[in-house]
Amino acid sequence: MRRTQSGEDGTMFIRNAWYAAGWSSDFGETLETRTLLNEQIVFYRIADGSLRATEDRCPHRLAALSEGRVEGDNLRCMYHGLLFAPDGQCIRIPGQQTIPPSVRVRTFPVVERHSVAWIWMGDADAADPGLIPDFQGPDHPDWAMIPGRMDYNANAQLIIDNLLDLSHIAWVHAASFGAGDPAMAEAWAEMPVSISTIDRGVRVQRWASDSPLPPYMAVTAGDRGDILTSYDFLVPGIFLLKTMIYASGTAAALVHGGTPEQPPLYQSFSCQAVTPLTDRTACYFFGFGPQSDHPEQAVAYRDLAVAAFTEDRTMIEAQQRVIDADPGRRMLPLAMDGATKRYEGIVSRLAKAEALAHAA
Amino acid sequence: MRRTQSGEDGTMFIRNAWYAAGWSSDFGETLETRTLLNEQIVFYRIADGSLRATEDRCPHRLAALSEGRVEGDNLRCMYHGLLFAPDGQCIRIPGQQTIPPSVRVRTFPVVERHSVAWIWMGDADAADPGLIPDFQGPDHPDWAMIPGRMDYNANAQLIIDNLLDLSHIAWVHAASFGAGDPAMAEAWAEMPVSISTIDRGVRVQRWASDSPLPPYMAVTAGDRGDILTSYDFLVPGIFLLKTMIYASGTAAALVHGGTPEQPPLYQSFSCQAVTPLTDRTACYFFGFGPQSDHPEQAVAYRDLAVAAFTEDRTMIEAQQRVIDADPGRRMLPLAMDGATKRYEGIVSRLAKAEALAHAA
Amino acid sequence: MRRTQSGEDGTMFIRNAWYAAGWSSDFGETLETRTLLNEQIVFYRIADGSLRATEDRCPHRLAALSEGRVEGDNLRCMYHGLLFAPDGQCIRIPGQQTIPPSVRVRTFPVVERHSVAWIWMGDADAADPGLIPDFQGPDHPDWAMIPGRMDYNANAQLIIDNLLDLSHIAWVHAASFGAGDPAMAEAWAEMPVSISTIDRGVRVQRWASDSPLPPYMAVTAGDRGDILTSYDFLVPGIFLLKTMIYASGTAAALVHGGTPEQPPLYQSFSCQAVTPLTDRTACYFFGFGPQSDHPEQAVAYRDLAVAAFTEDRTMIEAQQRVIDADPGRRMLPLAMDGATKRYEGIVSRLAKAEALAHAA
Ligand code: FES
Ligand code: FES
Ligand code: FES
Repeated sequence: MRRTQSGEDGTMFIRNAWYAAGWSSDFGETLETRTLLNEQIVFYRIADGSLRATEDRCPHRLAALSEGRVEGDNLRCMYHGLLFAPDGQCIRIPGQQTIPPSVRVRTFPVVERHSVAWIWMGDADAADPGLIPDFQGPDHPDWAMIPGRMDYNANAQLIIDNLLDLSHIAWVHAASFGAGDPAMAEAWAEMPVSISTIDRGVRVQRWASDSPLPPYMAVTAGDRGDILTSYDFLVPGIFLLKTMIYASGTAAALVHGGTPEQPPLYQSFSCQAVTPLTDRTACYFFGFGPQSDHPEQAVAYRDLAVAAFTEDRTMIEAQQRVIDADPGRRMLPLAMDGATKRYEGIVSRLAKAEALAHAA
Repeated sequence: MRRTQSGEDGTMFIRNAWYAAGWSSDFGETLETRTLLNEQIVFYRIADGSLRATEDRCPHRLAALSEGRVEGDNLRCMYHGLLFAPDGQCIRIPGQQTIPPSVRVRTFPVVERHSVAWIWMGDADAADPGLIPDFQGPDHPDWAMIPGRMDYNANAQLIIDNLLDLSHIAWVHAASFGAGDPAMAEAWAEMPVSISTIDRGVRVQRWASDSPLPPYMAVTAGDRGDILTSYDFLVPGIFLLKTMIYASGTAAALVHGGTPEQPPLYQSFSCQAVTPLTDRTACYFFGFGPQSDHPEQAVAYRDLAVAAFTEDRTMIEAQQRVIDADPGRRMLPLAMDGATKRYEGIVSRLAKAEALAHAA
Repeated sequence: MRRTQSGEDGTMFIRNAWYAAGWSSDFGETLETRTLLNEQIVFYRIADGSLRATEDRCPHRLAALSEGRVEGDNLRCMYHGLLFAPDGQCIRIPGQQTIPPSVRVRTFPVVERHSVAWIWMGDADAADPGLIPDFQGPDHPDWAMIPGRMDYNANAQLIIDNLLDLSHIAWVHAASFGAGDPAMAEAWAEMPVSISTIDRGVRVQRWASDSPLPPYMAVTAGDRGDILTSYDFLVPGIFLLKTMIYASGTAAALVHGGTPEQPPLYQSFSCQAVTPLTDRTACYFFGFGPQSDHPEQAVAYRDLAVAAFTEDRTMIEAQQRVIDADPGRRMLPLAMDGATKRYEGIVSRLAKAEALAHAA
């Protein structure tokens, strides 16, 4: 088994982390096979409805267990009939009385929370559900969000880099987010960015002072305002973005920066998760919506997200093709890459700790 | 030229053997190019209608001879006009008087028999037509069979393994052969199997005593009976299966096992051949039918075969994908793999003999 | 960057040469990305309408510049907004005041001439427009030609070999050029060929004496005549073919061979250019037509060219598949390969000079 996997610029994908395998609703009656971090995994629900994940490979002759059958709590390989208990141990070999304890399949911890099926790709002993991020998914009472999904022909690291550096909004999203005007684009790029380290991640904040507001925000908050864009980016690829509108002048009145004490006039939220499938494919899950008292805006937000993320995908998949055409080229660090660098340091430390724990 | 080719589990494909290149009727007026054991081969019929096989590669500038033209007994490369005699020797080079004897193409021995075009992939000197298996193809007077063909995205060895271990019938063919009932499946799996070595192959026999008979057998043989399943699996991938129905009690009355002396009440036959194309593709030829006095059942048998072999293919192609996803994984030998192991030993000895003969 | 690229038989693609990137008319308002000699290149027109070529790769995070935007004379990367001057230097990094001089993209010299956009793939300092071949494209006043283009799944060298050895006409073009009759084919193959070295190329000439003329030539030149076929093949893959009809007996009257002093009764012309895209793909540009006083024949010539070049492509793409199936096979030099050998020598000398200049 590969313990780590290198991203384009040397970053590692860590394994001791909860990855989004899919929306919880993706997993129903049938066995589903998924490739996650280059591993073939079969997902299935046992008698009590709970979701299980097992390597999709029978130890006998390497048949796909996803071609198998759930029998109560157990999983049957439908090639020659080996039967596996929920802990992975083989409990029946047709035509054979003795079953060596070594006949077993690897299982992966799975937890369903925040509308998402989370899977732990590393050492099962270290799987602490407390490490599942506070994702606030589509089922969260504060927000009106419709779950979305996008498949990428690109390494997950490139999507992560994209999310970590929102300076791209000025250029990539010229059409969708209306940032096409070069003056506005430059203004956004020059805006001071506050970057701080949080638990297993980074927090990035930007204030836009006395800014014209897009129509969907103007409904409640007027024509202009101070906009605070604040996101947390958490290991292994979780993006949680809040956009908050305050009265113009709020930012200037803050002595030491940070978030104002009064509630915003309007806010929206986006939860996103990037999951590596293979070295060249990834899956991107997202929700984006206003406060739950504006459910009528949920579809418009979803449509805006799909339009914007399609722009990202076009750019990133082209970037992947450029990289593949000459894999020796190195990226060039610039001032705008601050959050990216900070996050790389966090991942690098976690990867080292993981390697040490594994060696011990 | 590669002399051998390794299967998934270390088994070799031997070359000194007759492989089914196709049904005889596949080869008509036009030149046909085929990849067999990773070699490009062009098949064509010369003036007397006999089938010839030549490497599909002109020695001049490596054009495809399958883009060429048959002129009487000779084959013309239609790039720059070199002409090759049936023995592979070049006999004309436009614009050049002297023809070096080294200008020639490799030819392969071909024999048409039992409705099949057999090709010898090894040393031509060793090509003994006596080694062509007694295939009993669709043209055989005893059986009513319609020829079938199925293409596989999998290594031929995986199909061979499947045929060598009929314990898979209980699970893979739950739908087609009605073996889905777990109790029946277990019963089939527990049934004692007799395995013996024969000339260039193995013979595998199973008795099912006083078994309910499927409707198409019940026509002549009643509702229940003893069923003898007996197949020969021969190098390089030939499967010959007879299913014979006797009166209940016949098996118990046999002192030393084997085949009863009296004729069966009913019998059916299947001839099958697996041919490696590349390391990841194979072709599977098959006939399956009742005795020739039941020609009205031939279509039903053919349809049953296609349904069942499609189940096999789904399982085997998924197995191939699992193997390719992590090529280092080893298979785990179990008690049920007896015939597979026995056959591997036979192939291994033949491969060694072949390597020695080649070195000599 | 790879300095050279080996063809099938060891020939090098030289880089210090003008390659046809496309017809001039292929490049309009939008940015076009092209792969040429394994390099990703973006083509775009700046304010004055002139065509520019830049590597399609932003030095920052390796985004595709072809997803970017032309702003006056400059090219903007639309991922994070870096702006590049026509000489490749980065002149703006959003959010950063200092721009290291090393932040730049490679540019390629481009010249539009003879209806073609020519690109220099080697050292920019050595890019001498005087080395652009006298292509006489579709815009040339002497000829009536319609520009054509064909994409190949084959290494460019195989197309070049095909053009250098016109003995293939007798076989490949049996249908299109009416050379299918074996006697005629042999006659063409036996015809003496004069090969001479010219500047950066070879000249190949053949006389067919008192030959029946195809209908489209017979209009002005009668039923029979002496046909002089003369072509220049120039580095890096330029083919210029003239077919001239004279009164029967003209060839015999020439004492030392060569071209007669009197003008031909009729002539046609073809300009062709082969450009390597990757090691397994190439692009083939062509014009073929009569003298400009027969514009009504231009479509028929174009159709004839497409038919004939499709025959070539079928043969060559099959040849590439044969080569790929066993890359170790070597070609076999024959007498008919005279021009091919001569041209290979020229390319080899240029490649050596290029390597020396690069090392110096
Ligand atoms: S491969 Fe699973 S039981 Fe044989
Ligand atoms: S490649 Fe066959 S004759 Fe030239
Ligand atoms: S990749 Fe071009 S500006 Fe960042």
